[in-house]
Amino acid sequence: MNKRINLNADLGESFGPWKMGEDEALLQVVASANIACGFHAGDPLVMRRTVRTALDAGVSLGAHPAWPDLQGFGRRQMKMAPAELEAMVIYQIGALAGIAAAEGSRVTHVKPHGALNNQACEDAALADAIARAVKAADAALILLAPALSELHKAGERAGLRVAAEIFADRAYTDAGTLVPRGQPGAVIHDHDALTAHVLRMLDAGGIVTVGGRTLPCRMDSICVHGDTPGAVDSARQLRAALQAAGWQVVPLPEVLDL
Amino acid sequence: MNKRINLNADLGESFGPWKMGEDEALLQVVASANIACGFHAGDPLVMRRTVRTALDAGVSLGAHPAWPDLQGFGRRQMKMAPAELEAMVIYQIGALAGIAAAEGSRVTHVKPHGALNNQACEDAALADAIARAVKAADAALILLAPALSELHKAGERAGLRVAAEIFADRAYTDAGTLVPRGQPGAVIHDHDALTAHVLRMLDAGGIVTVGGRTLPCRMDSICVHGDTPGAVDSARQLRAALQAAGWQVVPLPEVLDL
Amino acid sequence: MNKRINLNADLGESFGPWKMGEDEALLQVVASANIACGFHAGDPLVMRRTVRTALDAGVSLGAHPAWPDLQGFGRRQMKMAPAELEAMVIYQIGALAGIAAAEGSRVTHVKPHGALNNQACEDAALADAIARAVKAADAALILLAPALSELHKAGERAGLRVAAEIFADRAYTDAGTLVPRGQPGAVIHDHDALTAHVLRMLDAGGIVTVGGRTLPCRMDSICVHGDTPGAVDSARQLRAALQAAGWQVVPLPEVLDL
Amino acid sequence: MNKRINLNADLGESFGPWKMGEDEALLQVVASANIACGFHAGDPLVMRRTVRTALDAGVSLGAHPAWPDLQGFGRRQMKMAPAELEAMVIYQIGALAGIAAAEGSRVTHVKPHGALNNQACEDAALADAIARAVKAADAALILLAPALSELHKAGERAGLRVAAEIFADRAYTDAGTLVPRGQPGAVIHDHDALTAHVLRMLDAGGIVTVGGRTLPCRMDSICVHGDTPGAVDSARQLRAALQAAGWQVVPLPEVLDL
Repeated sequence: MNKRINLNADLGESFGPWKMGEDEALLQVVASANIACGFHAGDPLVMRRTVRTALDAGVSLGAHPAWPDLQGFGRRQMKMAPAELEAMVIYQIGALAGIAAAEGSRVTHVKPHGALNNQACEDAALADAIARAVKAADAALILLAPALSELHKAGERAGLRVAAEIFADRAYTDAGTLVPRGQPGAVIHDHDALTAHVLRMLDAGGIVTVGGRTLPCRMDSICVHGDTPGAVDSARQLRAALQAAGWQVVPLPEVLDL
Repeated sequence: MNKRINLNADLGESFGPWKMGEDEALLQVVASANIACGFHAGDPLVMRRTVRTALDAGVSLGAHPAWPDLQGFGRRQMKMAPAELEAMVIYQIGALAGIAAAEGSRVTHVKPHGALNNQACEDAALADAIARAVKAADAALILLAPALSELHKAGERAGLRVAAEIFADRAYTDAGTLVPRGQPGAVIHDHDALTAHVLRMLDAGGIVTVGGRTLPCRMDSICVHGDTPGAVDSARQLRAALQAAGWQVVPLPEVLDL
Repeated sequence: MNKRINLNADLGESFGPWKMGEDEALLQVVASANIACGFHAGDPLVMRRTVRTALDAGVSLGAHPAWPDLQGFGRRQMKMAPAELEAMVIYQIGALAGIAAAEGSRVTHVKPHGALNNQACEDAALADAIARAVKAADAALILLAPALSELHKAGERAGLRVAAEIFADRAYTDAGTLVPRGQPGAVIHDHDALTAHVLRMLDAGGIVTVGGRTLPCRMDSICVHGDTPGAVDSARQLRAALQAAGWQVVPLPEVLDL
Repeated sequence: MNKRINLNADLGESFGPWKMGEDEALLQVVASANIACGFHAGDPLVMRRTVRTALDAGVSLGAHPAWPDLQGFGRRQMKMAPAELEAMVIYQIGALAGIAAAEGSRVTHVKPHGALNNQACEDAALADAIARAVKAADAALILLAPALSELHKAGERAGLRVAAEIFADRAYTDAGTLVPRGQPGAVIHDHDALTAHVLRMLDAGGIVTVGGRTLPCRMDSICVHGDTPGAVDSARQLRAALQAAGWQVVPLPEVLDL
């Protein structure tokens, strides 16, 4: 009987003198960190400190590549030729891998950030460019991609190990996509409701939609946040509930190596 | 009888739509390339193309980290806390290493660029930070440092393999430093004189100064340029003269592995 | 009898150590310059030198604001909230205006660059944001916008003086838009054909399309280029032909002040 | 009987998604704002919002130009050719002036930021380049420079209106320079002591040093901070004490126009 699940969060999103996020608290909750690589947030020093604190907490390291858009925090859509995007993603993975090596460890997964991730969930060509980049940088890397997304499919097409991610605080449409922010019920703010939503999906073996449908899929990792009030508390409660329900919260590689 | 020497040059210094340098021609002359890592020049796509063409030419790959100063081409002096510089150098080495891996190869040496290199030749603390960064990123990397410089000494203190570099087109003071640009005779423009200068130093087993002294030192690599008119011709002539004098021009690792 | 027309070109697109364009030659041909403001090209020093040489040549100054995308030369599409775009355009206009003031002159027009311009030709909301920015920065500025475009209409809605631009080397669809690059006949390479095309449109009083239709519209300025082989020669020939046909080539304000 | 004094502070130092400073609170205390121009902090949107809130509070606008060093927050020393620095400072002043114009107002002073300011206090050539830039951008601008500094002298040499600044929370050496941070007593943390220190200097008509000497000089403006715990409270207390002592706290132009 093996119930293993991963919790992941974005970390290392400070930049220069500017602080962001509750990294220390989140590192006590998640088992894998998506670490900003300097294109939407993070800088070499922030990256190194984040790698150190993540390793101290036993949290596995993921690269969190983004569009080159520091001012927009990588949340602005861009269009880029696939070859450029591919090189840019390899660059970011390599930079974090260098810093991980300097701290005696290694990067084990990649999760695109913000607008890049959102666009890759719908645009197969863009998703393929990302998958090629991950494979080229290190074929052993795990691609962490939203369940049922084009990015997930692209990872499988490329022969990568792909971990399927669900979002703890977001409602899903019957098509398996996120209910857009701004629509009623898009974001689940109540901690109990959020926990119940996740457990329901894990029990059902698939995404449970706002229409009440279940879309069967792999679910390897749950994305939590540390940037809104109460988010860390919510994540903490979710972790406790998962453990009470018999789930082991483990780093990404241990979920896939099952 | 083993006369092996390396020729190195800075490559991949285009950026976005802007071209610089005679990379293709230089790659037929040198045996090792110092590839810009995006901080003073280069971008991920330029880096990937440069790695590919270097590998096609049998030229070994070096990271060419710099101050974060694209507009100033890394030629402006900066002051940075050692921990920041260290992380920044690791970041740049890692980024290029990722791209090299994507092309099925690896980075084998590191040479700082421009003002960073110049400052490290005189400032032991800064040189130590660079040496620590190189060692942390990959202890097998060769540090390519000017003969007799503080950077060279810092590499040895750190236990790195260090290759000693001399400059083909520059005159040396009796203290073993470069005659500052702007002083008469600082730069050797005449191709024959340049070739004779280099051969004289290799024969003498040390740097031959403007005062006529010989400063004994290791000389593993000769730096040539591709950015001034005639520079590539000059480098080509130097290579031919070295070979005529019985020297094998080989990638950096093969000089040190002697 | 007043036949006045403007010729404009993008100038000052060098950056740091990297050179681009045939600015000195183009300044003998055009009467108005669109000067890069540091976001897609140009830097403060390049801007100042360009302003100086433009003023020496009697060429009027225009700001050439762009998406923040140096590596992509402002040719990548982006999405940005209107308020952000508006502030960003004001910033760039102000920066160039400061430099123009330092040289004893002033900016008299604004022309968006690259992808920003292309997107504004089709997206009315984005075009309105640009028009608001121009008006806020200096209500006396002329907006230089492609004839018949959404940007042109947005300028008129905002109550700005708008100059209508046609492209010397591009074919037009029957809808009045540019035939996309890549399609046969999109770009007019032959110098004689280009000159004939422009004169035909000026005679007809409107854009002449590939389908042979004439779309009546104002035509205040003709865009020429200096970045392709022969482009400057082509521009020179066009100017001579215009003058031979009785057209005075004058700075933008003099066309509109007619 | 005319006792007028200015209080100034650095504002608008947020960037993209990252917040910094207690701008709203400080705007109730100071009469002039030094607004970051995007090189060490600030972005066009942050600048526009800061200009608006400053104008709403009746606070006069100053440009706060810096080295191009976002990650280092402009606190890292750099070396740049004077012509480059001059153009860079004009660019930043112009950018803020454009935004001020868009909000129906104008920039009335300039105060360099961080390392640029510190270097300009000691390096006359660098200070002259800044003074030339301010004069070229707009000869009516006030240069806000530390009392007795090289920057202050450079402003006078250039024929600019110069306002002399003293620091509320810093001790002065007998040479009139700041006691370096890190030395005991360099920073005055106690609010009462800080207030007493400022009033003592204003009464004495000059800087009062740690050695007990008085160095007579103009004192037009007092620099306060909003970035350390209690700093805003301290500034508030200082303002109240100044007013109780009969000083009017007014925008910079009103101090100089006395």
